[in-house]
Amino acid sequence: TTNKHTEAPLKQSSLSSTGEMFPLSDVIEAQQFDRNLLSRIFEVARLMEVLEKGADAQNILKGYLMATLFYEPSTRTRLSFESAMKRLGGEVLTTENAREFSSAAKGETLEDTIRTVEGYSDIIVLRHFDSGAARQAAAAATIPVINAGDGPGQHPTQALLDVYTIMREIGRLDDIKVGLVGDLANGRTVRSLAYLLGKYSGIKLYFVAPDVVKMKDDIKEYLTSKNVEWEESSDLMDVASKCDVIYQTRIQRERFGDRTDLYAEARGKFIIDKSLMQRLQSHAVVLHPLPRLDEITVDVDSDHRAAYFRQAKNGLYIRMALLKLLLVGW
Amino acid sequence: TTNKHTEAPLKQSSLSSTGEMFPLSDVIEAQQFDRNLLSRIFEVARLMEVLEKGADAQNILKGYLMATLFYEPSTRTRLSFESAMKRLGGEVLTTENAREFSSAAKGETLEDTIRTVEGYSDIIVLRHFDSGAARQAAAAATIPVINAGDGPGQHPTQALLDVYTIMREIGRLDDIKVGLVGDLANGRTVRSLAYLLGKYSGIKLYFVAPDVVKMKDDIKEYLTSKNVEWEESSDLMDVASKCDVIYQTRIQRERFGDRTDLYAEARGKFIIDKSLMQRLQSHAVVLHPLPRLDEITVDVDSDHRAAYFRQAKNGLYIRMALLKLLLVGW
Amino acid sequence: TTNKHTEAPLKQSSLSSTGEMFPLSDVIEAQQFDRNLLSRIFEVARLMEVLEKGADAQNILKGYLMATLFYEPSTRTRLSFESAMKRLGGEVLTTENAREFSSAAKGETLEDTIRTVEGYSDIIVLRHFDSGAARQAAAAATIPVINAGDGPGQHPTQALLDVYTIMREIGRLDDIKVGLVGDLANGRTVRSLAYLLGKYSGIKLYFVAPDVVKMKDDIKEYLTSKNVEWEESSDLMDVASKCDVIYQTRIQRERFGDRTDLYAEARGKFIIDKSLMQRLQSHAVVLHPLPRLDEITVDVDSDHRAAYFRQAKNGLYIRMALLKLLLVGW
Repeated sequence: TTNKHTEAPLKQSSLSSTGEMFPLSDVIEAQQFDRNLLSRIFEVARLMEVLEKGADAQNILKGYLMATLFYEPSTRTRLSFESAMKRLGGEVLTTENAREFSSAAKGETLEDTIRTVEGYSDIIVLRHFDSGAARQAAAAATIPVINAGDGPGQHPTQALLDVYTIMREIGRLDDIKVGLVGDLANGRTVRSLAYLLGKYSGIKLYFVAPDVVKMKDDIKEYLTSKNVEWEESSDLMDVASKCDVIYQTRIQRERFGDRTDLYAEARGKFIIDKSLMQRLQSHAVVLHPLPRLDEITVDVDSDHRAAYFRQAKNGLYIRMALLKLLLVGW
Repeated sequence: TTNKHTEAPLKQSSLSSTGEMFPLSDVIEAQQFDRNLLSRIFEVARLMEVLEKGADAQNILKGYLMATLFYEPSTRTRLSFESAMKRLGGEVLTTENAREFSSAAKGETLEDTIRTVEGYSDIIVLRHFDSGAARQAAAAATIPVINAGDGPGQHPTQALLDVYTIMREIGRLDDIKVGLVGDLANGRTVRSLAYLLGKYSGIKLYFVAPDVVKMKDDIKEYLTSKNVEWEESSDLMDVASKCDVIYQTRIQRERFGDRTDLYAEARGKFIIDKSLMQRLQSHAVVLHPLPRLDEITVDVDSDHRAAYFRQAKNGLYIRMALLKLLLVGW
Repeated sequence: TTNKHTEAPLKQSSLSSTGEMFPLSDVIEAQQFDRNLLSRIFEVARLMEVLEKGADAQNILKGYLMATLFYEPSTRTRLSFESAMKRLGGEVLTTENAREFSSAAKGETLEDTIRTVEGYSDIIVLRHFDSGAARQAAAAATIPVINAGDGPGQHPTQALLDVYTIMREIGRLDDIKVGLVGDLANGRTVRSLAYLLGKYSGIKLYFVAPDVVKMKDDIKEYLTSKNVEWEESSDLMDVASKCDVIYQTRIQRERFGDRTDLYAEARGKFIIDKSLMQRLQSHAVVLHPLPRLDEITVDVDSDHRAAYFRQAKNGLYIRMALLKLLLVGW
């Protein structure tokens, strides 16, 4: 991929930039990241934790404009990106419900919208309801595009923040045991996480899912090809006692249509509560991409091993790192 | 209450801060404010009038991020808070219709939303449809929360700006006569104003309301307990001739359901027009929380005693003051 | 018109301001601009192209606040104005759907809304569904108002950017031939452009429109009175071969009601495609106000004479220029 920095502001105001370019011109999918690149991004994210509210951070992207082009609302993701940009001193143009925006409603193509919006900004964060929309937008754009979720497709910044959280909480990414729990069939989060963990060694994955939403074969085959051990289990207590990380997910009601009986059964099956926390090792953590319903009971929140709000916060650091890297390089 | 400043930006950039902490960590209800605190806040608001558009103001909250989390739209209140933050050099993350936001729609609790959003910002301004939501949010948050109206509950910054406007227009808060007119049963504005005036001495209140929306007994009893004189009247002309302040309010159609006859009768009953202004003393003023329909005729606007747009502007100064005080102290 | 600069920020931070005031206090309609004023505005817009992303630009409106008050969504126009303000270092208060905003929904007049919002900002950009709303707002406001489209009325910044684009692409505004194509009856864009071109000499206009949406007599009579030659044609190929500029527009489905047969016929009649581009002179350009449907085929986009995305970008420079001029003068 060619780099799209050519239209950058005249005055380079980043204190910390080395001038080395970031190898990606867009962030579209988890598959773009290898171990080494993840490791270097995580170092920048770690630096962002330190800089977060400092005056130095606010010079890094001073003068840059990010457009958040959201064709479906996702306030959590939008606020995380916008906070990241503003913590770095950049500015934001917001479109919260671009689907209803007059141009799209009048039948304008995504490419035309991108070619217009790129004239008003330096980087585009796109959320779309169609799988593949981010790749399509990146192909049309001469400025960087970040995929903030494209329907059933990819949500790469979520995948990166999940892996970053494991590294921050456990201290390593090799030789860990991770239990993936809940809706493993439809959750793009767990699918991407399993994919990225395939890049590390000594990984053991446990899949704990209701029958109707089991992990699909494509991921199982990929993991086997990468020498990642995995097994399916229906004993969450047992899995919890063995793992470094329990990654819980929400059972998505919208996947069940009229089968509310199946939904109710699936939803109640694997709950993380205080009794489960007693089986969890003292160094282990519970993650969740949020929002949660009752698949983690609220009395677990005060346990220091409940890491899901720290995980949400890590989304900020990952997005600060990616915005900096795409706009001003390393 | 403990103070929540611990996560403040590393570099304190307020020129005018004395280092003395503000005694409140959140602004939830009018009851938190006593005479002395109101007086000190009003001094800061007065300073904000002077600083409003100056370069100095823009350093006070430089580097701080405010999240406006609005579960129901209220553009006037939102713009007032966002203008206040930006006049002080701070930045804003906006959510205009958080009720429909995917997380809330998916069943996320307010507490979980707050614990996520506090990771992206330094202060949260919450508008909610449920009474008590602001208190609940403040309990969950480790950063300051300001209540921008929680349903039939409280709207404390409106109450403060009303009292501030009386002080600015009349020059004092003791020994004044105030006529409260219109919907006194449902208007949280007039209820809060009556409550705060109970803290001053020599106050006389007149209640002028259609029968169906009279002032409720709880406020009357509170005023009596505070030695505030009050009386009910249906002679607006007479009341206008005696008062320092006439506080007009809108009759809220939505309170009448199908009884459009009752609404029409109530709405037309007490109108402030040019003939009424002739009875008003020359130093007296007319206030209104806005928006108004026809309960004040537009030909009154050019009268210098029509103070309702100055009152709306005072909302900016009160909010600038509260944002500064909650984030960097006195 | 009197100038509304009285409430400007205390510290004048524009590096480039000469202190000479802009002759207009509001931008409401194309009729406000004569040749000389257009020429001077275009010089500022040209400077904005150079400054666009530089650090100097970011000091020009530092400390100023623009409110975008949009009673109907128009994301393209809103983002263009907001980008312009932010590139100049200013800040923005956004209202994307003010029609549903509680105050308007409760029956507040536009004048009352303006008198409130002007307390929170330094300039108002208004989009409204009613013709004449911008003029009404400007009359009520003590700060500058820019019309960003008022229903079937005016959209003067679009008219200015169209003329600016012709000057930038062709190098002159006198002695040019322009073909106006598509919906000439309802498109306020082409009507305003024809009006402004009437101020230049040696202009020849060709009108190429389906029968149901022909150019109306008022514009034809105006052009004749200004000694502008015009003729109607149904031979787009022939017109394309003669013109310096082909200005294509979208046939607006919403104008046809139930007559989908008429819409289909009108829509397919005058398409700009590769074969048409072969007839176009090498120095000529194709413009379009966007969004487009299929009235210009996408394979034309890569032709250097396809200038519509450059035209959209020029909207940024024109708006930067107008914001600067209205707020800090020449």
